[in-house]
Amino acid sequence: MLSPNMLNAEIIAIGSEMLTPFRVDTNSLWLTERLNAMGIDVKLKTIVGDDEARLEEAIRDALRRSEIIISTGGLGPTEDDITRKIFARALKRQLVLNDAILEKIRRRFARRGMQMPEINARQALVINGAKVLENNNGTAPGMLVQEGKCTVVMLPGPPREMMPMFDVSVGPALKQRAADLLIVRRKLSIFGLTESRTDELAAPIYTKYRNPSTTILFKDGQIELHLTARARSENEAGKLLDELAGQLDEALGEYIFSRRDETLEQVVGELFRLNGYSLATAESCTGGLLAGRITDVPGSSDYFLEGVVTYSNEAKMRILGVPKQMIEEYGAVSEQVATAMATGVRQLADSTFGIGVTGIAGPEGGSADKPVGLVYIALADDTQATARRYLFPGDRQFIRMLSVNAALDMLRRRIK
Amino acid sequence: MLSPNMLNAEIIAIGSEMLTPFRVDTNSLWLTERLNAMGIDVKLKTIVGDDEARLEEAIRDALRRSEIIISTGGLGPTEDDITRKIFARALKRQLVLNDAILEKIRRRFARRGMQMPEINARQALVINGAKVLENNNGTAPGMLVQEGKCTVVMLPGPPREMMPMFDVSVGPALKQRAADLLIVRRKLSIFGLTESRTDELAAPIYTKYRNPSTTILFKDGQIELHLTARARSENEAGKLLDELAGQLDEALGEYIFSRRDETLEQVVGELFRLNGYSLATAESCTGGLLAGRITDVPGSSDYFLEGVVTYSNEAKMRILGVPKQMIEEYGAVSEQVATAMATGVRQLADSTFGIGVTGIAGPEGGSADKPVGLVYIALADDTQATARRYLFPGDRQFIRMLSVNAALDMLRRRIK
Repeated sequence: MLSPNMLNAEIIAIGSEMLTPFRVDTNSLWLTERLNAMGIDVKLKTIVGDDEARLEEAIRDALRRSEIIISTGGLGPTEDDITRKIFARALKRQLVLNDAILEKIRRRFARRGMQMPEINARQALVINGAKVLENNNGTAPGMLVQEGKCTVVMLPGPPREMMPMFDVSVGPALKQRAADLLIVRRKLSIFGLTESRTDELAAPIYTKYRNPSTTILFKDGQIELHLTARARSENEAGKLLDELAGQLDEALGEYIFSRRDETLEQVVGELFRLNGYSLATAESCTGGLLAGRITDVPGSSDYFLEGVVTYSNEAKMRILGVPKQMIEEYGAVSEQVATAMATGVRQLADSTFGIGVTGIAGPEGGSADKPVGLVYIALADDTQATARRYLFPGDRQFIRMLSVNAALDMLRRRIK
Repeated sequence: MLSPNMLNAEIIAIGSEMLTPFRVDTNSLWLTERLNAMGIDVKLKTIVGDDEARLEEAIRDALRRSEIIISTGGLGPTEDDITRKIFARALKRQLVLNDAILEKIRRRFARRGMQMPEINARQALVINGAKVLENNNGTAPGMLVQEGKCTVVMLPGPPREMMPMFDVSVGPALKQRAADLLIVRRKLSIFGLTESRTDELAAPIYTKYRNPSTTILFKDGQIELHLTARARSENEAGKLLDELAGQLDEALGEYIFSRRDETLEQVVGELFRLNGYSLATAESCTGGLLAGRITDVPGSSDYFLEGVVTYSNEAKMRILGVPKQMIEEYGAVSEQVATAMATGVRQLADSTFGIGVTGIAGPEGGSADKPVGLVYIALADDTQATARRYLFPGDRQFIRMLSVNAALDMLRRRIK
């Protein structure tokens, strides 16, 4: 698998919480993707707690055998945060107080009207000779040390601090070192098929190729096909990916909602924006999650006007004008009520489209007739409304998530 | 941190797929829980692919420093499955073909009407002196080797093979070795303090104790204090935890929202239910996420009546009765409008409480006067309304999440 032209990296995740049954290291997945894209192979991952001897041994081993070491975590202000100290020890370098960083941390607290707690001064200690990596989203700066042939990078643990720091400071530095073979990945995002049906359609195609290789991933009710090409240039990799992706496109067609790693809500938002449409939502079982996903997209206020969460029947009647008789005759979870919700909220907001979701997310509230997982989703414009019935598996959270995905996909298919 | 009475384990996960961006090692979480319950501490985890040199080094390091080594994966029949070979090498023992296992694998294939592929014979190779661990759910047997003071256990990677094998064969063997100590954990969930401020308040207390030990975790804008007690009985551990938790309670008091691993929305839901109160929400920048979190709790329909997501100013005026003049004078993101939203939605729903959230989640829409991250949250009952101003750091997602947390915490504090 490994090309001799590729650089070797290893990742050390530092934090006792990842040695409990509760928490897994996910930073390394993101880092691996970034490193692979630069032609750098991840050969080993170590997860260690606030255990000085074991961390030091892990660093020494890594220094001996790897060309790039990336650590995450342990840069906080507390006693447990041993990264700075132990890397300095393993590298046989001193820790030096950096006044500029200290001042920056002080100012960061001051901006929020707080005084810097004294323990945060620790975060201004820098390994001698290290390049300081600015942290615009937290107090702990990162560090980059060149030790012989080995590039050592220390990053903070919180993803929202670690990720931008890598992209701004570490990526460009590593790219200069990286080799002439690179890995390029493409992701096809799929909704509306089961995992096995996807494989039935896709396997006869992708098994013909060793490069790109293909991995199928089931995630949050959606399916991802990851295509991985190895080539000497982006261009060459792009051609390899185009060929395979083109054939998968033919087989999976409308089920593919993105070829560019977009979320369903981003795709839907783009369609609304392009067409100048507007949207209003009426939710029952999803309780606001649909509106929440739609408004996750920056600028969604351009097309999302308003949403209502009509959890009680009284609210469905009063706000949306769902007839009391309809609820009594068909029940709140019915095609009729979903349609009335969609129509009602569209009229209320005077939007191009209205969407209504009503269902039973459980664990209580199901019956033989209307089991947990039964969900109706309706879509209305100014001339008509259509509803669809779903029966989703899983627990409350999963049913709510699948309902939101199905509603977004209904919008996507309608406008497309 | 380490009690001398506890045994130390490390876990080695073997498999190249866990060095891709797509797959994480979750076996170790399950194993950690099992080991902890027997009073065995997990001190390090290594994740390695089909890389002989690195695996051998990981095993040698582990043999030197740990009392128990558990590996998962790499016991399959292909070239890539190097676990048997490299453990034998690191242990300086021979691999011996075990005829009984070979026969068993042959029969397993025969039962499914197949002939054993020749490569599967590899799976009948056993390290000299190892105890063979039967696999009732697959072809690869596990192994247990006692090497000096170190117990070495090799388990297959698939959870449905690994888990029963551990419970049937490994658990009982380790229990004999394990000290008669067990680990009991407790979690204190905190909102409204920074990580460093929490540590300033808590460290003078928890650093006095080596047992229980304390870990601070920052997660989704909340803070978790994990207390871990080691004792000879649940009862004894409970007493140790009570003593430390009691002191932390005094120091952190109202900032602790749960001592039983509940979410903020569960705590709030419980308070609403106990008091027979009802709730309605009016959201702008959080776009439905607050209602979504509240309705994540099963049975929330007992107290959550309805929510509105008034993203446009027009909707704020029409649905909630926010005066146009107020928006023009103070802006949609203001204490006045938040208060009007809370009051308006409470009246609309005729609920005990109404809560209103308006802010600038970004990335666009900020100004010098009203920067990205500025959020007002107001809480109204039938006699009064109070609003609070927040300035949250981070990106759009983080600001929205912190806003939801702050709104939930405002409800908690009000009702408590």
